Amino acid sequence: MPACESYYPAEPKQPVIKTKTIPGPECNKELEKLDKVFDSRPAYFVADYEKSLGNYIVDVDGNTYLDLYAQIASIALGYNNPELIKAAQSPTMIRALVDRPALGNFPSKEITPLLNDLLKFAPKGQDHVWSGLSGADANELAFKAAFIYYRFKQRNGKDFTAEELESVMDNSPPGSPELSVLSFKRAFHGRLFASGSVTCSKPIHKLDVPAFRWPHAEFPSYKYPLDDEANSKVNKEEDDRCLKIAEDLIKTWPIKVAALIIEPIQSEGGDNHASKYFLQSLRTLTLKYNIVYIIDEVQTGVGATGKFWCHEYADIQPPVDLVTFSKKFQTAGYFFHDPAFIPSKPYRQFNTWCGDSARILIANTIGGEIVKNDLLEQCSRVGNYLFKKLENLQAKNPTLFQNLRGKGRGTFIAWDLPTGEIRDLLLKKLRLNGCNVGGCAVTAVRLRPTLTFEEKHADIFIEALTKSIAEL
Amino acid sequence: MPACESYYPAEPKQPVIKTKTIPGPECNKELEKLDKVFDSRPAYFVADYEKSLGNYIVDVDGNTYLDLYAQIASIALGYNNPELIKAAQSPTMIRALVDRPALGNFPSKEITPLLNDLLKFAPKGQDHVWSGLSGADANELAFKAAFIYYRFKQRNGKDFTAEELESVMDNSPPGSPELSVLSFKRAFHGRLFASGSVTCSKPIHKLDVPAFRWPHAEFPSYKYPLDDEANSKVNKEEDDRCLKIAEDLIKTWPIKVAALIIEPIQSEGGDNHASKYFLQSLRTLTLKYNIVYIIDEVQTGVGATGKFWCHEYADIQPPVDLVTFSKKFQTAGYFFHDPAFIPSKPYRQFNTWCGDSARILIANTIGGEIVKNDLLEQCSRVGNYLFKKLENLQAKNPTLFQNLRGKGRGTFIAWDLPTGEIRDLLLKKLRLNGCNVGGCAVTAVRLRPTLTFEEKHADIFIEALTKSIAEL
Repeated sequence: MPACESYYPAEPKQPVIKTKTIPGPECNKELEKLDKVFDSRPAYFVADYEKSLGNYIVDVDGNTYLDLYAQIASIALGYNNPELIKAAQSPTMIRALVDRPALGNFPSKEITPLLNDLLKFAPKGQDHVWSGLSGADANELAFKAAFIYYRFKQRNGKDFTAEELESVMDNSPPGSPELSVLSFKRAFHGRLFASGSVTCSKPIHKLDVPAFRWPHAEFPSYKYPLDDEANSKVNKEEDDRCLKIAEDLIKTWPIKVAALIIEPIQSEGGDNHASKYFLQSLRTLTLKYNIVYIIDEVQTGVGATGKFWCHEYADIQPPVDLVTFSKKFQTAGYFFHDPAFIPSKPYRQFNTWCGDSARILIANTIGGEIVKNDLLEQCSRVGNYLFKKLENLQAKNPTLFQNLRGKGRGTFIAWDLPTGEIRDLLLKKLRLNGCNVGGCAVTAVRLRPTLTFEEKHADIFIEALTKSIAEL
Repeated sequence: MPACESYYPAEPKQPVIKTKTIPGPECNKELEKLDKVFDSRPAYFVADYEKSLGNYIVDVDGNTYLDLYAQIASIALGYNNPELIKAAQSPTMIRALVDRPALGNFPSKEITPLLNDLLKFAPKGQDHVWSGLSGADANELAFKAAFIYYRFKQRNGKDFTAEELESVMDNSPPGSPELSVLSFKRAFHGRLFASGSVTCSKPIHKLDVPAFRWPHAEFPSYKYPLDDEANSKVNKEEDDRCLKIAEDLIKTWPIKVAALIIEPIQSEGGDNHASKYFLQSLRTLTLKYNIVYIIDEVQTGVGATGKFWCHEYADIQPPVDLVTFSKKFQTAGYFFHDPAFIPSKPYRQFNTWCGDSARILIANTIGGEIVKNDLLEQCSRVGNYLFKKLENLQAKNPTLFQNLRGKGRGTFIAWDLPTGEIRDLLLKKLRLNGCNVGGCAVTAVRLRPTLTFEEKHADIFIEALTKSIAEL
């Protein structure tokens, strides 16, 4: 039996939209109340998670949507998954919630098995983990690990100098070093201060917030489809152009580059793919200049591209140094393999909770279900099915399906509309036709269904999409 | 019936130490396994939370400690609290865990009541909240709110300029402004990049991590006891000296000061108290220079000083702008009252999860229990009882009880030993005598029991302390 049927025998057969506008009247009433205490402006609608099931999310007006956005790409298996409910009711979970341990100082007896389970899902070549709380947190913790490692190598194993110990208390070098992280234009790595400095997708994420003067290289802009032989030469030239910019920045940026961070597919920034050649060449570059190589798998990780980790498609050798995760894993942190990334002294990578065993338990359950039900295979298969249907629509209406991308990357699919206005209108029509879908960058539609999304769901989506396009 | 008896009828009557060393042999076995995947060096012991109850924490060797550290000041009511277990088993909790909502885009129908409940515990004068995940996260989110607010006022309601929109994508001013947060020496506000820049307690927290060049003023160093008339003149002079330094920095620091952050009692940095006069005078200063006033209640909040929020003792008028929380509340974020702290456009203060409704439910249960059982009154009463006993020990042995502080601040009590070595030895002896106690700064012992700590527990602690001192 397909995973979806066995998890959700009562999953709705199709969307039901009861209101003429979305948000509907009940949602608006709830949003008015919410607005008194919280910023309610970004809300699409107010969800009734009690009634949501599997691939369907229900709002407080009773609208039932097929969900291809899934909490901004963060629901792996579907709503009210019975195996996750079991995990949530387990004594381990209850203790993790009511006796939340400070895992560094007072680790629980459960934490070693929990971490060992988590590491079963680590990218090939990675066998240690440090745990955090969100994608931004994971990336910033990875930066800390990278800087500490970089300075450790520079210091050649020597202890801190008196000058370092003193200057750091004034936030001055050499104790607080002048070092940078290189990232890419259109990247999204979070919205705190260091993660915000490497983020470069939209001004609104960054305006008025002080930033480190860290450099942004150019991310390749390919001609799609990527598997079209006719595009391979120009795409390779684009890779080389961007690699040269990255190398030039590494050589000339006034603040020495200690680490590089990249998403294998820039997600928030527009579903921009990085080729195998590009990701592999960055490994050469990072080794040449002794730079820590960080892959951000916050959105691409945990199965949606048909592999557990998207950068596994690129077979980067030797493996990258740090891989960050969050979102669909529901827990956050970074994987690594070189023990030198454990700082030379304790309390350097440290905080009160050092992660969250409640969420690690959820991550392990999600990972286990993916493996047990072969959801990577399903995601690849359904992704191919969906992609072909989209290619058919594209053939009929190329203007509304520009740069269709994500072939062979599971359901991690996107395309561009001619303008942001038309894209936004399409997303609105899609909701009114029963499908909750998100955008990314300015003109792209991004599909981020759960891993239990099947051909039957793809059919419903294609029908709603066809109808929505006709209504544009 | 006292809260502790009604929550924990089976709470141990006293500590039981079974091993000659701590960590004991079973702990060491577990730590060896943990060390293969995680940094186990900071571990005091490996806890068995299943067997821990109320004010007692049990380790995997079967040692039972009276816990006066409580997960680095983060357990409010005690281990395996029955009301928290009920909350953890509730359908609202299970949904928050398995269907973790992106609260900004897809708020749950439960979120408004949850936030309204949370706001019942907000400091007087605060009626909005923005939620995050940890103390460092809370402070950095507060900084973002402060910077956005500061620039909004500077901009006089005008929209962003083309130059701002462009420069921000290069991490350059004016879009990424040159602005700073003023903090205090010996402060601890977290270990990420902006929170790390305002943290100034120990080099080890900061070394090798790039920092913003933000200024640190001096935090008053008082003569204790604070209520001794003989000390009032010199302490007032100390306040004025430090206020002048803060004002001078505000006037002269090359990076304009947009916000100021302070703990009412610097906790990690040594339990350094700020006087009512000092905290009130900072309000005058922040108003004079249009600086956002942030109080960090991450460690001092949620009852341990005998008030729900420690800065309520200072009766700061008008109320401070932002108050951050985490730790004993188990959820994190900042309270505020001026709606201008909601950014002018959506998606400026935003991220995938925008907090965590699972943890807000826990916070509300904790807050409700504190009120229902009048635990603030109990904490004040027990704190006074404990403080008197410590004064007696101090009278007999002033060298080992220097700067005894926290009188009238519940159980939030600390004192200094002559050296760090003697302090560490005392903490070790205390564990061997059945009490788990933490230090802060270099020479201080800090007491951070739960709010269900009673006179009988204080007696057990004083007995263990007397014994430990004799063994030094």
